[in-house]
Amino acid sequence: MQDRIDRVRKQMRAAGLTSFLVSSLTHLRYLFGFTGSNGMGLITSDLCFFVTDWRYRDQAAEEVRNAEIVIVRRDMLAPLKDRQLVQAGDQLGFEAQHLSFRLFSQLHKLFDNIKFVATEHLIEKIAIPKEPKEIASLRRAGAMAGAVWDQVLPFIRRGVTEMDVAAEVLYRARKLGSEIEAFDPIVASGPRSALPHGRSSQRRLQPGDFVVIDYGCVAEGYAADVTRTVAVGEPPAKLRDAYAAVKSACELACEAARPGMKGSDLDEVARKHLEACGFKEEFNHSLGHGLGLDVHSLPRLGPESKDIIPANAVVTIEPGVYFPGLGGVRIEDDLLVTETGNEVLTPMSRELIVVE
Amino acid sequence: MQDRIDRVRKQMRAAGLTSFLVSSLTHLRYLFGFTGSNGMGLITSDLCFFVTDWRYRDQAAEEVRNAEIVIVRRDMLAPLKDRQLVQAGDQLGFEAQHLSFRLFSQLHKLFDNIKFVATEHLIEKIAIPKEPKEIASLRRAGAMAGAVWDQVLPFIRRGVTEMDVAAEVLYRARKLGSEIEAFDPIVASGPRSALPHGRSSQRRLQPGDFVVIDYGCVAEGYAADVTRTVAVGEPPAKLRDAYAAVKSACELACEAARPGMKGSDLDEVARKHLEACGFKEEFNHSLGHGLGLDVHSLPRLGPESKDIIPANAVVTIEPGVYFPGLGGVRIEDDLLVTETGNEVLTPMSRELIVVE
Repeated sequence: MQDRIDRVRKQMRAAGLTSFLVSSLTHLRYLFGFTGSNGMGLITSDLCFFVTDWRYRDQAAEEVRNAEIVIVRRDMLAPLKDRQLVQAGDQLGFEAQHLSFRLFSQLHKLFDNIKFVATEHLIEKIAIPKEPKEIASLRRAGAMAGAVWDQVLPFIRRGVTEMDVAAEVLYRARKLGSEIEAFDPIVASGPRSALPHGRSSQRRLQPGDFVVIDYGCVAEGYAADVTRTVAVGEPPAKLRDAYAAVKSACELACEAARPGMKGSDLDEVARKHLEACGFKEEFNHSLGHGLGLDVHSLPRLGPESKDIIPANAVVTIEPGVYFPGLGGVRIEDDLLVTETGNEVLTPMSRELIVVE
Repeated sequence: MQDRIDRVRKQMRAAGLTSFLVSSLTHLRYLFGFTGSNGMGLITSDLCFFVTDWRYRDQAAEEVRNAEIVIVRRDMLAPLKDRQLVQAGDQLGFEAQHLSFRLFSQLHKLFDNIKFVATEHLIEKIAIPKEPKEIASLRRAGAMAGAVWDQVLPFIRRGVTEMDVAAEVLYRARKLGSEIEAFDPIVASGPRSALPHGRSSQRRLQPGDFVVIDYGCVAEGYAADVTRTVAVGEPPAKLRDAYAAVKSACELACEAARPGMKGSDLDEVARKHLEACGFKEEFNHSLGHGLGLDVHSLPRLGPESKDIIPANAVVTIEPGVYFPGLGGVRIEDDLLVTETGNEVLTPMSRELIVVE
């Protein structure tokens, strides 16, 4: 983790910052190892401080590396002033996306003699290439997602509700060691499968349904994010065609992914194919996104993404095709981009499965 | 819901605001009925607008009440400018706690001729007294939490892991109709039960353990939040004494709660009792908090809380006693404060249960 802080300091120097305030919980875990729900980090050119409240005293002592721990009763900002961690003339960088206006304004009142510099994605960018230990966790999360699928599949059949399937996914994931839900599982069936962000409902699976099942697993904080689509009974021809097109779009993107590619170029591999299959309008979201401690991170894989995919990035590949009122298909796998190509982290068949 | 917006407008007039920007997802659900993950509301003296992105077009059409729906491709703030929803001279209130610095700063750049007014808890305060329909949902969530407990209890015994118990809690809650987890369940056993915010681990339950189990259920968006502590085998005398003290503290606070009380006064009922039992230092958190669409909301029940508890508020009562290295006890119920007293919403025995 010291190496991560060195990389933050390099970015700080490049941006002319004398200190940097870390307020995203994900980034506090990434830089200092803290897994609690309240904390703040301050990185200067030669020191690091980690502030949390008394509830996390023991946990911080056990978890936090690379920083002096400061425990407060209530006011998280007080030590910055009382212990002069921030000083007149400082150029203090902060995470514009991860700091509320309220906290910013409290900071601003405390220090009228420093310069505040809003930053975007400073830590997110550092965190894109994964270290061997992070890759091991992402591989474990992917394997767990595969094992969940093997256990849940026999449970998917006509008559069970979407919420029943979601409960089974959650239960199997936890029993297989997933620490928490990466996100609330999506189980969307029949016409509801056309909603890319449908929540699970009490709808019962019926013959002719496509069922989109999108869920995550977490190992040592690192997430897997997978989707499979199952047919209940014989599907309408239109959905069967869409399935074949989405499956090959997923395969083509997985074959194409390599280091140095631009996010928009990888997106285009899948998009061109789906356009050629006649599903231009029906693939109405991005191809995928970076994966790590956060489920949605950099690099972005979409038509407008200028992000470059470096070696050791982990990304989702999730093409989808949706027909409002009828149904939809999405297939999502996680890829580790390697020095020479890539490796699929989610060992799950992409063949269409028809259940009774 | 129109009534809720009328109350917002009343607060706006009192604060001299011509318009109010709603950015908290919980508040968007409260005011407009929207349950998705991206949205923004604007309330003026006579109009309401709800902005979301294209992914939620169908869902917004189905759910949103009391507002004109505006769908954007990407930039959530664009319609404020393009459609002149905000105009020169406006006094625009916003939610300081629920708006990131980044969004605030984008807003600020868009409109240099209006006055931005940071507000705190404007909607939170309006939402404290619950309407009959909200109370019905909170009652259902409480009953669900009780049913989960009945099903999970037989599963708690020596040899199972904390994570196994957590998986069982999640599964039973979902099968009983809980829409989502109100929060990740805490299952903390043995010495770990002394951590008020311990996560579930792979630790196996052992004779002599106290096991603190803190979990939630959600009905129509409204949360229950309950805790029970179970002994595995014969507990140490110190923990048994602490259990008796916490149980009577919980009972005393539940008996005392009535409308018009100050949060600190209700907290004191439990705190005085635990002090008299010799556990002053060991009860090191607040007595409870308001409950609704958010698990932690107003009124606060703690030593420093000046919040008044009105009729139809719903609060948690959760005294606890913790001995570092040995273990802890917490008992938590949810109360509806009525015109004349209160009603416990979580039908679960508070007797000490010793399992094998």
